Amino acid sequence: MALALFSTKGYEATSLREIAEHLGISKASLYYHFKSKEDIVTSQMSSRGDEAADLLAWARAQEPGRDLMERTVLRWVDATTIDKLRGIRFINANPALMRTLSRGSGVGTLRDSLSEVASYLAGDDAGPARLLLVRMALLSINTAASAAAGTGCTDEGIVASAKRLAHALLGELRSIS
Amino acid sequence: MALALFSTKGYEATSLREIAEHLGISKASLYYHFKSKEDIVTSQMSSRGDEAADLLAWARAQEPGRDLMERTVLRWVDATTIDKLRGIRFINANPALMRTLSRGSGVGTLRDSLSEVASYLAGDDAGPARLLLVRMALLSINTAASAAAGTGCTDEGIVASAKRLAHALLGELRSIS
Repeated sequence: MALALFSTKGYEATSLREIAEHLGISKASLYYHFKSKEDIVTSQMSSRGDEAADLLAWARAQEPGRDLMERTVLRWVDATTIDKLRGIRFINANPALMRTLSRGSGVGTLRDSLSEVASYLAGDDAGPARLLLVRMALLSINTAASAAAGTGCTDEGIVASAKRLAHALLGELRSIS
Repeated sequence: MALALFSTKGYEATSLREIAEHLGISKASLYYHFKSKEDIVTSQMSSRGDEAADLLAWARAQEPGRDLMERTVLRWVDATTIDKLRGIRFINANPALMRTLSRGSGVGTLRDSLSEVASYLAGDDAGPARLLLVRMALLSINTAASAAAGTGCTDEGIVASAKRLAHALLGELRSIS
């Protein structure tokens, strides 16, 4: 993936030609899909935004009930892949780029959609503590990625820790609901 | 606090004169302590770094035992104040400034010292999952501050959620130790 290459070489130092080589395709076919490096990042971010929007639609279509929060959070967290983790690491490492791209693109959508999911799951009359715990559960992979910086922890280890964090928070949420 | 003023007006838009007014002191006495805005931020960050170094020294001076991790994490998390939360929010909102200041100053120290505390508590032969969970427990307030962005949650609510997160992670850690 292009994001993995950005993470190794740095975003600024990576050219579209290198990305094409890395993917084993011609520069022409890469250009056919993406006009620029920014375009690659934006497209990745907007896929993730779509996934969060799909999660919201899915949650809304379920029978409301005590276990809906748990099922929805686990649906999101269990779908975490190494590729998504790389995307999150890229976002964390390039805050200035993210701010630039988020103007008028789909980049802001992921966090917004996840916030909507959290509000829906926490309920209209949820206190702030409950809402924050649900948000933190949905953002488990982001938290684990950030805590893992500099540890040499494997991607698999980070994903596993994120799942543990989500489970711990769901346990905490059961105790206050 | 100067960081609160930076958060309201934005760092770039806040002058040393305004900070002095806000603190109710003369610009001359502010200059006596701080040569620049950067100096104010660096001094805040280095105090927090000192606190993390103190935590490590404290943990090392304790009798090792099963409850040392819990006591150390709670010592750190319970010391979270609204002022510290503002500092964290400021850091999150100004990543580029933080990168600039961290070159050759004490800014990198907080995270480094907390990492050392986490390694010490997790133990030399800790698996990555255990180490990451301890790190996440120590970084609870950072996680809560980040999850609270845009919720209108009060500072007290954020601090309370951070404590719940730390407790949930300590519970998870008990189950794998």
